[in-house]
Amino acid sequence: MDARQFFELSIGRWRSQRSGHHLAFNHFEEARSTLDIIALAVDDPAVVDLCQLHGIEPAAVSQPFRVDWEGEPDSKSRKPRGSSVLLPIPDPNYPAQGKLLASPTLTTPAATVSHYSLGDDETLVLSTQYEGAVVEERIWFASPNLRFRVSLVKDNGSTDLTTALFCSEIRALGQ
Amino acid sequence: MDARQFFELSIGRWRSQRSGHHLAFNHFEEARSTLDIIALAVDDPAVVDLCQLHGIEPAAVSQPFRVDWEGEPDSKSRKPRGSSVLLPIPDPNYPAQGKLLASPTLTTPAATVSHYSLGDDETLVLSTQYEGAVVEERIWFASPNLRFRVSLVKDNGSTDLTTALFCSEIRALGQ
Repeated sequence: MDARQFFELSIGRWRSQRSGHHLAFNHFEEARSTLDIIALAVDDPAVVDLCQLHGIEPAAVSQPFRVDWEGEPDSKSRKPRGSSVLLPIPDPNYPAQGKLLASPTLTTPAATVSHYSLGDDETLVLSTQYEGAVVEERIWFASPNLRFRVSLVKDNGSTDLTTALFCSEIRALGQ
Repeated sequence: MDARQFFELSIGRWRSQRSGHHLAFNHFEEARSTLDIIALAVDDPAVVDLCQLHGIEPAAVSQPFRVDWEGEPDSKSRKPRGSSVLLPIPDPNYPAQGKLLASPTLTTPAATVSHYSLGDDETLVLSTQYEGAVVEERIWFASPNLRFRVSLVKDNGSTDLTTALFCSEIRALGQ
């Protein structure tokens, strides 16, 4: 599996279970959500706009996609939801790695640039520098319909990890 | 880091937070425990006995150790606890992989043989065939004092994963 195939296999609807471990406080957190990962055409206006924002040519993009997510509400509050456009830009010299450009969202108002690298064991490692934190994610498929993700969140300026998140994502079939 | 160094770095006391995702039932489970991983000498009687049980020479063992664990009780019940002796037997031709022999315990009354393999990304992949299930674990260090483990449990005869477990293990320092 190459990186493009990895992104292609991610297309679809996923039911996600997430556990958060707050390491300093020995505290658990749980959440459920639905992810819709939708393939976009390279000439989709959202793709062209985001390319322009980052100053890159749409021809450099491989398999752009959009992620729509909707969380289960905690109580009677409104469902948390969000959407982001993502553009993989493979490194022409090392196609197993590259950049992943993300559109601004409500929670991350600046457009972000992640670095990705697909290892020999077909685990995608994704590193993202946010304003106040660095996030490193490992994502892998246990089967075509089951994906796992471990995210480690480290505050900027700190050497300690603050939070570890584990997601199991099951493909919602027949929908 | 080679496999022996990986096992050596695991020696110590660890506070573990574990999240279980029961995939078919969309159900969460949480647990806390303390692990004591204790280095053993190759001529320790527990090591010699377990070598005999498996019909191998103690000289083939690299960095044997014992794991003592104690869980936090669910309510007022007694603390769940257990102990197991583990013997890494490196493959003489491919030292990044080998067998891990485990002594019988209360929960797994038969001695088990796991296969381990340390990847280029320093993740240890451990596969164990139990009586009714296959367990595949990925274990890696985020730092010398923080270890992660993802365990996937698959019932024998089924192609589906039944449970995914995520553990974050923090070294208990100064004890």
